[in-house]
Amino acid sequence: MKSPAHRDVHIDALRDAGNTRRSDAIAVEEPLEIRLMRDGLPEADDNGGTGRSISITMRTPGHDAELAVGFLHGEGLLREARDVVDVGPCGPTGNVIRVTARADLPLDLQKLGRNFYTTSSCGVCGKASIEAVNASAGTQRVESDLVVRESVLRLLPETLKASQAGFAETGGMHAVGLFSAAGELLASREDVGRHNAMDKLVGAALRAGELPWRDRVLLLSGRASFELLQKAMMAGCPLVAAIGAPSTLAVELAESAGVTLVAFLRPGGCNVYCHGWRVRPMRNES
Amino acid sequence: MKSPAHRDVHIDALRDAGNTRRSDAIAVEEPLEIRLMRDGLPEADDNGGTGRSISITMRTPGHDAELAVGFLHGEGLLREARDVVDVGPCGPTGNVIRVTARADLPLDLQKLGRNFYTTSSCGVCGKASIEAVNASAGTQRVESDLVVRESVLRLLPETLKASQAGFAETGGMHAVGLFSAAGELLASREDVGRHNAMDKLVGAALRAGELPWRDRVLLLSGRASFELLQKAMMAGCPLVAAIGAPSTLAVELAESAGVTLVAFLRPGGCNVYCHGWRVRPMRNES
Repeated sequence: MKSPAHRDVHIDALRDAGNTRRSDAIAVEEPLEIRLMRDGLPEADDNGGTGRSISITMRTPGHDAELAVGFLHGEGLLREARDVVDVGPCGPTGNVIRVTARADLPLDLQKLGRNFYTTSSCGVCGKASIEAVNASAGTQRVESDLVVRESVLRLLPETLKASQAGFAETGGMHAVGLFSAAGELLASREDVGRHNAMDKLVGAALRAGELPWRDRVLLLSGRASFELLQKAMMAGCPLVAAIGAPSTLAVELAESAGVTLVAFLRPGGCNVYCHGWRVRPMRNES
Repeated sequence: MKSPAHRDVHIDALRDAGNTRRSDAIAVEEPLEIRLMRDGLPEADDNGGTGRSISITMRTPGHDAELAVGFLHGEGLLREARDVVDVGPCGPTGNVIRVTARADLPLDLQKLGRNFYTTSSCGVCGKASIEAVNASAGTQRVESDLVVRESVLRLLPETLKASQAGFAETGGMHAVGLFSAAGELLASREDVGRHNAMDKLVGAALRAGELPWRDRVLLLSGRASFELLQKAMMAGCPLVAAIGAPSTLAVELAESAGVTLVAFLRPGGCNVYCHGWRVRPMRNES
């Protein structure tokens, strides 16, 4: 059962020019439960062969397999394409997806215990201890010689926007775009949750064997939070740009992980928060 | 140890007019672990007297006690002021807060088991079953004869914006405002997470004995998600307005819960999604 990314509802549009009853498209938001099992190994299972419940996220349907794989990658449970044996919906609603990992994948089942209930939007929830934030964040460092021209960065928002069909319809969806250093849009995903859009991109890349993203640029349609930087870092991306504002923890993580963070990216300029050597300013370009 | 809501960092501002190295304020994002215990009852405890870990959310420090109480109210664990015996920080970081509930508060400790790991931003995470979304959402219905003039609604965004000191500084914080039916701003809260801003408002009202909000209007600075509608419904608020877009699940929940949902609220008009009788259109006003 497939759901579209947006759906028409009837609204009362109250306007100066007059009130009308009409149809309007809104973004679909539905829960997705992510389940994980190891191939042939029932020990990680808590529900009769359907895998262990890892997370429930509120997402826009579509690219659910990518979302699930990307989410599990962000949590450090999956690392490469061969880790995934199978991904598919289970149950009648279309809102449960099961990832089957290879039988010999080292999974810390302790992490899958009750303290592991992560979610959706913060990247540390369910780690159930604040210390885990720093511990987890400190485990990866992105190494890349990538340098991107500021003139290229400035054009990315317009390119991403042109790909945001869902936003154009609803005005209510985030997007994340994956770009080459030359500014070519390689892929983009939309979702009511920005973390889901990122997971979908990462999941697609993992399955295609394209991680880590050592020479790629990520553009976020909104703000740059800790969680999004964490996911980008896990994917090995050296440069993250956001159209919106960053948070303190996003800047701190980017700084410590060796990721260049650009925010408030507009046609007229941008702010660079750390590892600015990866951005070649326009006035230095020939 | 108190943290401010925003902090200055050094940035490279790349602009057409020239590049400068300068200071810029960004929104503080830090984890907050919410712990719950019952007065004198260690059975809900898993960590030597500090209470049971319920959730970790990424939030902007400030009003943490309100956030914790509001969060637990949204989850149905706290209902009124007398349910809360004490709220205060525990540990040295300022990022752990413990709520002590009255000893005889009926708490479904089963819900506090491993399936309860809720979070931050989706309102259903950790319920660990999708069926719970509908079950939970169906338990409350808001009854109120409140009617608000469209002309009053149109002025709310401007009023809320004037209260958003954090956004003015950082460009990176959400806000939720609580208004009277006449359009008077009664309270507002800001946070990097919109769900936290809502929890802070609800928690303050619960502790002041001001719930349910039968004659109040809530204004969201961003989009209207399922989670925000769920929290508003739990607080008994009959009219929720958003400056941004709604999602399908937000509309469905508002419809079934008897909550009037207004979105895309602008000076020139708004869209009304359900229970529109609570909005008196301007052209019908005398």
